[in-house]
Amino acid sequence: MDIQVDNLDKDQVGAMIEWLASIGETENGGVTRLLYSPSWLEAQLALKNIMEQSKLHTYFDSVGNLFGRLPGTDLHGKTILTGSHVDTVIDGGKFDGAYGILASFIAVRRLFQAYGYPKKTIEVVSLSEEEGSRFPLTFWGSRNICGTYTLDRVKEVKDSAGIPFLEAMKKAGFDPEKYSSPVRDDVERFVEVHIEQGMVLEKNQKQVGIVTHIVGQRRYTIQIKGESNHAGTTPMSYRKDAVTTASQFISFLTEKAKAIDPQLVATVGRLQVKPNVPNVVAGEVEFSLDIRHHQEEVIDQYCNEIFTEFKRSAESLQIEVTISQWMDVQPVKMDGEMCEWTREIAERKNYRYQDMISGAGHDAQVFGTKCATSLIFVPSQKGISHSPKEFTSLEDLETGIDLLTEVLYKLAY
Amino acid sequence: MDIQVDNLDKDQVGAMIEWLASIGETENGGVTRLLYSPSWLEAQLALKNIMEQSKLHTYFDSVGNLFGRLPGTDLHGKTILTGSHVDTVIDGGKFDGAYGILASFIAVRRLFQAYGYPKKTIEVVSLSEEEGSRFPLTFWGSRNICGTYTLDRVKEVKDSAGIPFLEAMKKAGFDPEKYSSPVRDDVERFVEVHIEQGMVLEKNQKQVGIVTHIVGQRRYTIQIKGESNHAGTTPMSYRKDAVTTASQFISFLTEKAKAIDPQLVATVGRLQVKPNVPNVVAGEVEFSLDIRHHQEEVIDQYCNEIFTEFKRSAESLQIEVTISQWMDVQPVKMDGEMCEWTREIAERKNYRYQDMISGAGHDAQVFGTKCATSLIFVPSQKGISHSPKEFTSLEDLETGIDLLTEVLYKLAY
Repeated sequence: MDIQVDNLDKDQVGAMIEWLASIGETENGGVTRLLYSPSWLEAQLALKNIMEQSKLHTYFDSVGNLFGRLPGTDLHGKTILTGSHVDTVIDGGKFDGAYGILASFIAVRRLFQAYGYPKKTIEVVSLSEEEGSRFPLTFWGSRNICGTYTLDRVKEVKDSAGIPFLEAMKKAGFDPEKYSSPVRDDVERFVEVHIEQGMVLEKNQKQVGIVTHIVGQRRYTIQIKGESNHAGTTPMSYRKDAVTTASQFISFLTEKAKAIDPQLVATVGRLQVKPNVPNVVAGEVEFSLDIRHHQEEVIDQYCNEIFTEFKRSAESLQIEVTISQWMDVQPVKMDGEMCEWTREIAERKNYRYQDMISGAGHDAQVFGTKCATSLIFVPSQKGISHSPKEFTSLEDLETGIDLLTEVLYKLAY
Repeated sequence: MDIQVDNLDKDQVGAMIEWLASIGETENGGVTRLLYSPSWLEAQLALKNIMEQSKLHTYFDSVGNLFGRLPGTDLHGKTILTGSHVDTVIDGGKFDGAYGILASFIAVRRLFQAYGYPKKTIEVVSLSEEEGSRFPLTFWGSRNICGTYTLDRVKEVKDSAGIPFLEAMKKAGFDPEKYSSPVRDDVERFVEVHIEQGMVLEKNQKQVGIVTHIVGQRRYTIQIKGESNHAGTTPMSYRKDAVTTASQFISFLTEKAKAIDPQLVATVGRLQVKPNVPNVVAGEVEFSLDIRHHQEEVIDQYCNEIFTEFKRSAESLQIEVTISQWMDVQPVKMDGEMCEWTREIAERKNYRYQDMISGAGHDAQVFGTKCATSLIFVPSQKGISHSPKEFTSLEDLETGIDLLTEVLYKLAY
């Protein structure tokens, strides 16, 4: 593909978003850049190219994270890292991940043009993987940098076509045989900008969200076993109807989530009925439950209340209920000082901002356990994400870049 | 298959149930006899054989209903018809349909042995089809006899393997080209015995159920369209969650069904969620609703109340709800005089009996719109039916036959 890098105005975020989205563009107007795929590699190489044109020193680490380094004058100083992930979901949007990389690149470019070399080294990073959309693991890029993942983690991992992780990696030019640890101990702070992927900023008419916490997540499978019966010959009072029981549980858990804390979310997204036939009282229902909040103790309290009620209710209905947990991610707090500096800048620049909780996972949550980290959101139109319809206005994109530029100035100059 | 007809004690219901169940026996110990299949034909021919051995005049009509005639001495009298259906669901039980045919056969045999020829002609009928388990239509046997169906109804009908109805019919020996109307205008009364397929008699410790009505049935598809959203970034108060809404509707319709009338049943047996993914708030749910009661006006009132609430609730939640009806079967009343005679006999014989409503469909409901009809139930263990686990004790089976014998005596001798 002929990418018009030279004609690109590298300070214009709109043009750059379209340019990066053209790599892996789908027929629906979305983007598919799965880890280690040809479009992924093309995007990383294209980013490397524009970074080099802007005088950044570029290099890849062993797992394909791309760095663009603007060296600091203080030779013994630590590094300020900023960026996001280059991979996408299948037929995803143009902004998720990509915007964070481009915002960091543009911010650093503007800083260099205005102020020259910083005191502290700044590196723009295009992280290799966050979404988990090709292989069944997430945060491959940031977890390697932070040392929570190594090659061992992926030795048995394959994609849905059966291609081994290590083979895909090698094919993209990152030969596992030549692996050397991508762990970075010199990173002092990490800053990420990202689209919100929700509708809070839009509803509140804010330009910027300053993320104070990234939620913890628990996922469960709830299985209800009642009794399958004839829909005509079984009076209501004799039934052990799994659909009715599931409905009561879902109504209960929804009301309870609303009552306990406005920040708590609980979602039943998947539900399966057996035998799933109109004229048979269902004997079995299985449903997923996704629970998120930024305070572990709120999740604990909520789980305790709903599961106690499920068990009590199941016993009184003589129905069997099984609750199995299959995900447990801890909440992560963003750095208080960095949040405060960001607020001060937003205030000074008259940006309409608000503190908020991130309900989605982000690379910032991996870095947040390792170094001082902050995460800045810009609005997502109608909250739509992971879709070709994902959209953020040029004004909002620009506000995010401007705020990031100021934050990086504060951190590195 | 070598069926030991000659060694069979034709007055022993247990032996006869096992014998008939051996034709189309499945590896799970169930029975599969789909309309016009080889096992179906084998069963009809075997039944013809034992009827002939018991001096009944046998014949098939054009659609494969098998009749065994015990002629009455009153040559101008009408016919008392008794029997049930020979077809089964896939991997069904040994009693559903089969018991009714065998009970009628044994009862007529006993009457003939004890009293000789009746005044009125009695015919035992093994109806060709009731279940709708091969082709998408039900009551093929009784509806042909009653004139509600003709060959026209099945011209375009195929089974799930794509075999046309008329081809299957021809292959079983009932050539549509030689079709002559199976409508019977000489049938004065129809009596059927059947297993209850519910647990009312068992719970009430009764031996016999005298069916006063067969319920009307309505089936609907309810479609809920909300908004698919990110499970992490969408606060509870911003959601238009189709699963939550469906759960509220199902809880409401269940409570309302219980409150309106203890005889009313309402079942959500099938439910489908889109996109059905754990971390996505579901945008769409579709569920079935099966409603039954023996009084049209109760069904009307119930539907009116729940659908009004669904629409009110959907409007307030800004969610779209669509209600489509795809089945409407009227309730049918059994003949009051025949019910009364049956009660008197049960009383005299000290059988523990009760009046009841049939929540399932039966051939009796087709005959019930055409001639005086009665339906007698015997208990089903745990209410299980349409399963290899279907079971009724020999004592209960015998009670049903004895009662039927007495009823037929009253009607024909």
